[in-house]
Amino acid sequence: MRISELAERSGLTIATLKFYIREGMLQRGEATSATRAEYGDDHLARVQLISALADVRGLPLTKVKQILALIDDPDPDPVVVLGRAIGALPPYVQGDRAEFPRAQAAIESLGLTYDPAFTAVPQLEDAIRALEHANLDAGPDTLRRYADAMCTVAVDEIAPLSEMSLEEAISYSVLGTALYEPLMLALRRLAHQHLLADGLPPRVT
Amino acid sequence: MRISELAERSGLTIATLKFYIREGMLQRGEATSATRAEYGDDHLARVQLISALADVRGLPLTKVKQILALIDDPDPDPVVVLGRAIGALPPYVQGDRAEFPRAQAAIESLGLTYDPAFTAVPQLEDAIRALEHANLDAGPDTLRRYADAMCTVAVDEIAPLSEMSLEEAISYSVLGTALYEPLMLALRRLAHQHLLADGLPPRVT
Repeated sequence: MRISELAERSGLTIATLKFYIREGMLQRGEATSATRAEYGDDHLARVQLISALADVRGLPLTKVKQILALIDDPDPDPVVVLGRAIGALPPYVQGDRAEFPRAQAAIESLGLTYDPAFTAVPQLEDAIRALEHANLDAGPDTLRRYADAMCTVAVDEIAPLSEMSLEEAISYSVLGTALYEPLMLALRRLAHQHLLADGLPPRVT
Repeated sequence: MRISELAERSGLTIATLKFYIREGMLQRGEATSATRAEYGDDHLARVQLISALADVRGLPLTKVKQILALIDDPDPDPVVVLGRAIGALPPYVQGDRAEFPRAQAAIESLGLTYDPAFTAVPQLEDAIRALEHANLDAGPDTLRRYADAMCTVAVDEIAPLSEMSLEEAISYSVLGTALYEPLMLALRRLAHQHLLADGLPPRVT
């Protein structure tokens, strides 16, 4: 297909596609004349992936590039790849700290592995600190409740990995981490709205 | 306390505190002379709340202001307030659409309330579209799995509302939506790292 059709089918402008090409995120089409290039389904899939990360997930361009690089040039160790993928997603952790007392206490009480090199450890530390600062409960029972729900989700998410090739597993881990999060949050918010709308008198709007 | 102590105890700079005052997010301290003002624990709590939203949750200033306004000047209808709070959190939905076919099908199959005025509906639509574009499964079984986990979480989260005053309920809904999300995501990511590190040969790093 021509670049105009790629634009139409992906819902992006030609200028945006040319920008992605210049930035090295999207491969140039195969030249069919001095001014024309031909694009295929691989290009469309790539554009849709970039758009999912940039437009829907709202990631800044530098982070989209990091995630694409993880997929294009995969490290053979899925734990390393997952750590890097998590590092490319918000919340972006500030500072160079060596100790995470809140996260360490939480993780140990939950029976999970405490490794300060895990990218999610400072994220957990900051999340608990923010709850404390807002006077919201982050005690052992509350942590346990959220952790139980997330472990249930994670076990189901990890299961398909055993039947995947390394390449598929990398892509699934990286994109799954980035793109199931918005789904989960949207469903939680919907559940709140459903429960509140259900349990309260008709709205006054 | 003096503003210097407020800065020290909150971990922010005096310049940042003065900026929050100028922006109307933080009340000026009580003047004790022409050049001095006295700050109290209420100020510290407010500063920590702003920092939790801006620094930890990473919200842009305009969104932090929106959330503070929901708490400072609450609408009497919690459903309305919750909708506005959700609208102040990412992902920020683009465009003015009237139909959300993926979200509608998903919500109906899950037995939740479909109301296109719910802010989470376009967020769900976009989340499902992003998964499709990345070739990740967003079929009924997968949706059901995430929805079950989120409904379990949401029911526990909604429960304390019945014992709160309206003001407390508003603050809890708004801040709970904003600040339990990073906790949940950090725990999911930790569960992944824990499960992967556990089930795979020693890392090569």
